Amino acid sequence: MDNATRQALIDIVGPENVTEKIMDLVSYSYDASSYEHRPDCAMWAVSTEQVSRILSVANEKGIPVTVRGAGTGLGGLAVPAQGGIVLDLTRMNSILEISIPDRLAVVQPGVVYADFQAALAPYGFFFPPDPASGVVCTLGGNVATNAGGLHAVKYGTTRDYVLSLEAVLASGEVMRVGARTMKTSSGYDLCRFLVGSEGTLAVITEITLKVAPKAAHRATALAVFHTLEDAGEAVTRVMHSEVTPSVLELLDGSVISLLREHAHIDLPDVEALLLVETDGMTEGYVRFQLEKIAEMFRGCNAAEVELAATEEEAEGLWKARKSIGGMMGALHLDYIPEDITVPMSQIATFLRQSEELSRIHGLDLFNFGHAGDGNLHTNIFFDGNDPDQVARLEPLLYDLHKLACDLGGTLSGEHGIGMTKAKYLPLEHDRTALKTMRTLKQALDPNNILNPGKMGLDFFP
Amino acid sequence: MDNATRQALIDIVGPENVTEKIMDLVSYSYDASSYEHRPDCAMWAVSTEQVSRILSVANEKGIPVTVRGAGTGLGGLAVPAQGGIVLDLTRMNSILEISIPDRLAVVQPGVVYADFQAALAPYGFFFPPDPASGVVCTLGGNVATNAGGLHAVKYGTTRDYVLSLEAVLASGEVMRVGARTMKTSSGYDLCRFLVGSEGTLAVITEITLKVAPKAAHRATALAVFHTLEDAGEAVTRVMHSEVTPSVLELLDGSVISLLREHAHIDLPDVEALLLVETDGMTEGYVRFQLEKIAEMFRGCNAAEVELAATEEEAEGLWKARKSIGGMMGALHLDYIPEDITVPMSQIATFLRQSEELSRIHGLDLFNFGHAGDGNLHTNIFFDGNDPDQVARLEPLLYDLHKLACDLGGTLSGEHGIGMTKAKYLPLEHDRTALKTMRTLKQALDPNNILNPGKMGLDFFP
Repeated sequence: MDNATRQALIDIVGPENVTEKIMDLVSYSYDASSYEHRPDCAMWAVSTEQVSRILSVANEKGIPVTVRGAGTGLGGLAVPAQGGIVLDLTRMNSILEISIPDRLAVVQPGVVYADFQAALAPYGFFFPPDPASGVVCTLGGNVATNAGGLHAVKYGTTRDYVLSLEAVLASGEVMRVGARTMKTSSGYDLCRFLVGSEGTLAVITEITLKVAPKAAHRATALAVFHTLEDAGEAVTRVMHSEVTPSVLELLDGSVISLLREHAHIDLPDVEALLLVETDGMTEGYVRFQLEKIAEMFRGCNAAEVELAATEEEAEGLWKARKSIGGMMGALHLDYIPEDITVPMSQIATFLRQSEELSRIHGLDLFNFGHAGDGNLHTNIFFDGNDPDQVARLEPLLYDLHKLACDLGGTLSGEHGIGMTKAKYLPLEHDRTALKTMRTLKQALDPNNILNPGKMGLDFFP
Repeated sequence: MDNATRQALIDIVGPENVTEKIMDLVSYSYDASSYEHRPDCAMWAVSTEQVSRILSVANEKGIPVTVRGAGTGLGGLAVPAQGGIVLDLTRMNSILEISIPDRLAVVQPGVVYADFQAALAPYGFFFPPDPASGVVCTLGGNVATNAGGLHAVKYGTTRDYVLSLEAVLASGEVMRVGARTMKTSSGYDLCRFLVGSEGTLAVITEITLKVAPKAAHRATALAVFHTLEDAGEAVTRVMHSEVTPSVLELLDGSVISLLREHAHIDLPDVEALLLVETDGMTEGYVRFQLEKIAEMFRGCNAAEVELAATEEEAEGLWKARKSIGGMMGALHLDYIPEDITVPMSQIATFLRQSEELSRIHGLDLFNFGHAGDGNLHTNIFFDGNDPDQVARLEPLLYDLHKLACDLGGTLSGEHGIGMTKAKYLPLEHDRTALKTMRTLKQALDPNNILNPGKMGLDFFP
């Protein structure tokens, strides 16, 4: 970066908000993926105007700008793949407005997810998407990845809740898109187009989110199945019924074994476990829904169906599901957490064939995830110090993604494409769709300064 | 159209599927708006391949192509504003797949909305958006306009249900966008970007729609309020509560008077009527929700709250709302049916100020609409044979749209922009947002052949 450019950037945010210190740059080289690349500098912006001026300079000089929230992304989305500026927006962290009668809230992109939920709670309202990194991740990151979570089966993902955005284009021009209303048919939907665009089309500086009343009651049940096929059939029956559970999680035999062994949870030796939750305004209604689901589980040869009678019992049923993250940390193993998604009817097929692929490639994996929306977290173990295992990783990943796409699925249910999945895009999207993505990117960011090197936009044919 | 082009088009679909007969062309000059323009020819296509070949020819020769379904649009979307080809897709009317376990269906764009609902009914499932023209309108048109309806307050609009599309670009290239899964974060969301794009970006040739289980029970209540402000406060309280009704309709004093006089419905002389419906899996639960709402209505000084005890009584409560369309037809008056939408908290303000604008401009209007999502149908009466009234129409429309935007609203909740609202776009969208829409249009349709003259894409600065 030349001195004139450096000075121009310092003039915008002040010298204390630009860093070229090696320690800082190393920190800003990573997100939660295995990718890394060092930026030339990092900056903190606190206003839309600063973001606009930074992009004007960067666009004129052709400097890459990678926006960063909490850096919890699993796909390399916040890694400055081609250097340049990391633009940290975590200081734009104000909740600007909560309007419950309009069922919306206006926030800056750096607001931490958990802080937003805490601000909504006194109203009895909540923001339904619930990424696992909610304690630290930012709402801007949620929008950039179209984050999902446990409750998407009933409540949908981030895209379903973004009403309006303020965004800065590569040129530095600021625009508002979407509407502050529950519905709109007014011009192209630039708002949802920006959701999930991973910082490659614009920098989001303000977000208007739909919020929803929180159900006062919930009921939880856990069922175990001797075969994956029975569990898959149970999911199918629930989806075929009038009941839409608020949670429908699946754990496969491998993760059940691991939890028994390493987290010391008392679980039977079965191929699948389903955890289900219903919610609603009355206790009677959530029990009614849960009983219906329990009946369907029993009709699919569930070895056991346990309905929680109290909050404590519900906590107990959640224990296995909630212990997975901690157990993975304690195991100190290298692993890849995937987020492949398939149509719900294909879950058992995917799980069975993923076991087969695990055997073929000689790498262990287990599956858990959101069976109610088909989003499966396939976790693949490998030893990063063993070149032979590392060499086998990529072919296995390719086969898993190909399998998902062959079953009518998608590469990513909630993590995004970023750097990790760019190479698989042609498995899911046809040539014309990929070309169209690149055409739109080029139209909005002709100098390719916004998060270059992501989502395959630079290199696919 | 030169002979070579005519022959090229005939070669694609056969001579019986191209018409230049004046009677046909007159029919294809209109939709349900007041706009008209004659095309050079009309064509019926029955396959994606035919659509692709037609667009290739049109793109090469620079001939406008305006896609048409049932022609029920209220915004001039299907009017061939610059002549060329009207491409009628009503013969692409097959329901290709219904997969209840995956909670989706695959349809061609010409499928009539009501036929689709009829096909889903035996499964206990339905397609939640419910445009008033459902008996005749096509699903392709629903997608092109992002159609809404009575139940959007709880169930959302068409965009929320479009999972995947097959679409033909202006070049004739065919692409699939979106995914056959409940969630996806895989590349730009081209799918929702095409929803509501009014045939200006691509021709949609196949649609994958999310479907939902139909609630077995519903309960209905009707409340009348002496003042608009009390009714507005009642809407606010409901939105502020844990209950999300499946219907929350408002009728203002003017339409109540008209119904009393012309439809002979026994209604009191009040400023507002709210019709509410709750739905769910048990009778107890829908009553529980309805009682909660009735209590809120009473707390807002409702003059009367009537809860239907039977299906017949519910029908009775719906009578006023359902009679509006027929009454308007019987009145034989010229009128403009608007679909302005405001944040729910602004409904009373909008209604009161729209009365004021009616007085100022000397044209009668009444309001009814979907209070639960802020979507109001302002109907303006005028005498089309009176040049003075016609001259006053446009300033009133401008002021109404400006008022909506000043209150944080949107120009169109469900009809689309088309030709009728293009001139108001700058009231809602800033210059950069409008420029971005045009940039994206130009990137995908550089020869401007797809439904040119719509959505202000040709002329805004």
